[in-house]
Amino acid sequence: MTLKIALAQTNFLVGNINANMDNIVNAAVYARDTLGAELIVFPELTITGYPAEDLLLRADFIASANNALYQLAERITDIALVVGFPEQDGDKRYNSAAVLHHGAIIACYRKQALPNYGVFDEQRYFTAGQQPCVFELNGCFIGLSICEDVWQDGIIEASKQAGAEILLTLNASPFNLGKISQREAIICKQVKAAQIPLVYVNQVGGQDELIFDGASFVSNAQGEIVFRAVEFQEQISVVEFEHNQPIKSSCAPLYDDIAGVYHALVLGIKDYVRKNGFQGAILGLSGGIDSALVLALAVDALGADKVEAVLMPSRYTQAMSIDDAVLEADALGVKHHTIPIEPAVTAFTGMLADLFSGSARDTTEENIQARCRGVILMAISNKQGKLLLTTGNKSEMSVGYATLYGDMAGGFAPIKDVPKLLVYQLSRYRNSLSPVIPERVITRPPSAELAPDQIDEDSLPPYNVLDPILERYVELDQSAEQIIAAGFRQEDVARAVLLVDKNEYKRRQSPPGIRITSKAFGRDRRYPITSGYKGI
Amino acid sequence: MTLKIALAQTNFLVGNINANMDNIVNAAVYARDTLGAELIVFPELTITGYPAEDLLLRADFIASANNALYQLAERITDIALVVGFPEQDGDKRYNSAAVLHHGAIIACYRKQALPNYGVFDEQRYFTAGQQPCVFELNGCFIGLSICEDVWQDGIIEASKQAGAEILLTLNASPFNLGKISQREAIICKQVKAAQIPLVYVNQVGGQDELIFDGASFVSNAQGEIVFRAVEFQEQISVVEFEHNQPIKSSCAPLYDDIAGVYHALVLGIKDYVRKNGFQGAILGLSGGIDSALVLALAVDALGADKVEAVLMPSRYTQAMSIDDAVLEADALGVKHHTIPIEPAVTAFTGMLADLFSGSARDTTEENIQARCRGVILMAISNKQGKLLLTTGNKSEMSVGYATLYGDMAGGFAPIKDVPKLLVYQLSRYRNSLSPVIPERVITRPPSAELAPDQIDEDSLPPYNVLDPILERYVELDQSAEQIIAAGFRQEDVARAVLLVDKNEYKRRQSPPGIRITSKAFGRDRRYPITSGYKGI
Repeated sequence: MTLKIALAQTNFLVGNINANMDNIVNAAVYARDTLGAELIVFPELTITGYPAEDLLLRADFIASANNALYQLAERITDIALVVGFPEQDGDKRYNSAAVLHHGAIIACYRKQALPNYGVFDEQRYFTAGQQPCVFELNGCFIGLSICEDVWQDGIIEASKQAGAEILLTLNASPFNLGKISQREAIICKQVKAAQIPLVYVNQVGGQDELIFDGASFVSNAQGEIVFRAVEFQEQISVVEFEHNQPIKSSCAPLYDDIAGVYHALVLGIKDYVRKNGFQGAILGLSGGIDSALVLALAVDALGADKVEAVLMPSRYTQAMSIDDAVLEADALGVKHHTIPIEPAVTAFTGMLADLFSGSARDTTEENIQARCRGVILMAISNKQGKLLLTTGNKSEMSVGYATLYGDMAGGFAPIKDVPKLLVYQLSRYRNSLSPVIPERVITRPPSAELAPDQIDEDSLPPYNVLDPILERYVELDQSAEQIIAAGFRQEDVARAVLLVDKNEYKRRQSPPGIRITSKAFGRDRRYPITSGYKGI
Repeated sequence: MTLKIALAQTNFLVGNINANMDNIVNAAVYARDTLGAELIVFPELTITGYPAEDLLLRADFIASANNALYQLAERITDIALVVGFPEQDGDKRYNSAAVLHHGAIIACYRKQALPNYGVFDEQRYFTAGQQPCVFELNGCFIGLSICEDVWQDGIIEASKQAGAEILLTLNASPFNLGKISQREAIICKQVKAAQIPLVYVNQVGGQDELIFDGASFVSNAQGEIVFRAVEFQEQISVVEFEHNQPIKSSCAPLYDDIAGVYHALVLGIKDYVRKNGFQGAILGLSGGIDSALVLALAVDALGADKVEAVLMPSRYTQAMSIDDAVLEADALGVKHHTIPIEPAVTAFTGMLADLFSGSARDTTEENIQARCRGVILMAISNKQGKLLLTTGNKSEMSVGYATLYGDMAGGFAPIKDVPKLLVYQLSRYRNSLSPVIPERVITRPPSAELAPDQIDEDSLPPYNVLDPILERYVELDQSAEQIIAAGFRQEDVARAVLLVDKNEYKRRQSPPGIRITSKAFGRDRRYPITSGYKGI
């Protein structure tokens, strides 16, 4: 008794129900005709894409998704499909998986564990299901589960007790550093305990701040992975089951941490540009490491012909910054323009001279420079229909070392969740593939170049001190006391914590960026702006 | 048998635990010594303020709140206190209310109904309680409940069945248009059905996007309101109960809709500026109605001496715009500066001339003007430590008729949730108090003045058509089909819906503003930017 199950690791556009339906049909036809599959499993909420957020509160949206499901059942025969959809039942909505076979819906499962933490808001949209669902296909008894279900104790076991011999899991499990090994370890442990083979299908692609990494897999009843799909790419693959046991197949290797993040960022840029219909991307190239990395990522994501770099030197820009920026643009084959900002800075200084007479120079004047660059970049973006990529990193976003509407201007911030030390590691990784970022960009002390001889360390603790403090405070929610007890200097901790706390207002207006840590700014970390809480 | 219960309608700062404790003690002493109260009831989550958002995920924050509660019990005697606090019990957290009496916690109730819709994320933070809580004071049996509990069927009834003769409710119930009458109607209906008198204490004040209106009240067992506190102000008041029935007391009248919104906006500005420690506020005054209204609101909130207006005419600014802006600033006694933007616009035009040569003039050139104004206003804000108020309205925010980093620049957007037609109503209301907005500002056709002879209706349907369409699409989640069926022209609906859908990216970077409708942009309406959903 054999069964061929296809895993559809697909990259769908949220909300694009009609196109998603066509893609489901195409994938099923390929699985049936080319791979010989008898069953194909799609990711969580296949029809709408994940997360559809408050689109799920629109009656017309839910009706479209449900209509699409019924039509789908009639559009394809000779292969069973498992697809996720938002199921409306009276005034309740469920995160469901339907089994379509011979033109009918032969089973429907409602997700039981609804995550409502971190980036997840599922209890905003869905009611929890209460029971397992097992269907029969070619003599096999197959259980259904959805994402969070298999991270929790009891649900896999209950499905087995309901008669399941194989368990399918539909997923939309977002990437972060270390997530894939964590995911496989936790789920395989559950599988091993329950002694039931598992088919895990994850979606792939970028959706606003989230990256879905794919890395779908099949585990045997012993919790051993016998098949793994590639990371960060679409893939339709098939695994054969004999007497309900999966036959060992190919296991795509996993990237190491740094390479994994790099590929996640490339996919994030690619999908944001593609899915939002931009002609390409532009960015300000300063000669510093952040914009150097973003340029390399953008070119790897979109191709050199879709990317333009703009150099905007000021009186504080060192010659080596310009030289290095040009070197990298040329190495990558990217068109670049140079627009000195002096005329605009002079204009604003003159316009404000009366009002500011008698006031000392302060960060206002630095911000004006950054904002002149913002105006130029946005003008080019507007004129050319290209997405402006913002080049700030997570360390800066954490402590507010960035100018609102200045260097923070842009539609998408690829490395917004990448701490500075990781920016260096990613740059070295990229250069290990082919040398594109000039060595001096990596080795010189980082500087905003908004004042004479300015370097970041004038205003901030060194990044090898700052980044671990930020990780503890932001990602791990440790108190200042705990961080100091871990061996950090009181004054460094106090400074970092104070800056994080008081810069929530800047983060609230920052462009979306790609989440690659376990806690990104954005919907992952929801802090009040108005707050009397003192972290220290 | 009598009991005097004080209602503490307080305005606390989220996260400011130590100061909140002092304020609780001061209020209790006043209620005890001046009002003769034997019991004082505070709003939901008194100690931390509401909503504390992800601060509630910090172990140090929860520990501080719990320590504060235990200290509080010892700080005040001879009056019982009911205070809200986040209760940690093992790995679970509850939204709780404690009764402090004679130096001890004599009862503790855990909120049973946790709202997780609209602006609420309570299931992200809390586990639901499972049972009523009734305590005895001076021979009275008093039940506890928290906010959402009394909106739902069954919880009031269960408290009565557990022996409660009077029910207390601690609340953090945010304002929106029509909310107060809705709230009183729903809750009094529940009260009448259960036949138990209710003491409803709501917090007051602005917290980022939310306004809490106060309007605390006492209902008798027949669902009749026998006491109401004022709206939008702190108030400690007392109501006497005789044989468990409240004695009729004063009922503050309610504002009508327009006046209510006006006062909500004034409170929102006042609290954002005060709680975030700004020196005052500035804004760009264009001569149009939006900035005219925001200026009046800001002066009413902060006083004329704390507000500055900046006029930034361009070649497209009509003389009457400047005249009217000056007239209003003078009428309100507000300092104003005039900084023509031409030098900066000319500088940018020159800097971009080569790159843009051969390209037709488009919105890019309009955006440059708006962004020059943004740079000037932000420079003044930075230099003076004053909050920049953004003056855009909800109609503009809905359809994206605004420039990112231009007129959208600012720290706070008071009328962001106010549709254009309501802007007119609010302006007329303000002028009915004293005439400050020149009549011509109200009667002339609205224009962004970014191109020759431009008026809003060149790009948008008239507001008396647009606003009702937007209300249906955004607030009521109606489909385009439904809106057309309600009698709107297909082309107007199509245009509005398309613009709302495609401008999510702008709204994501807009400053926070005051929520006054049943669905504001921000945490109330969570839409993906990347989306293939077509509303039409």
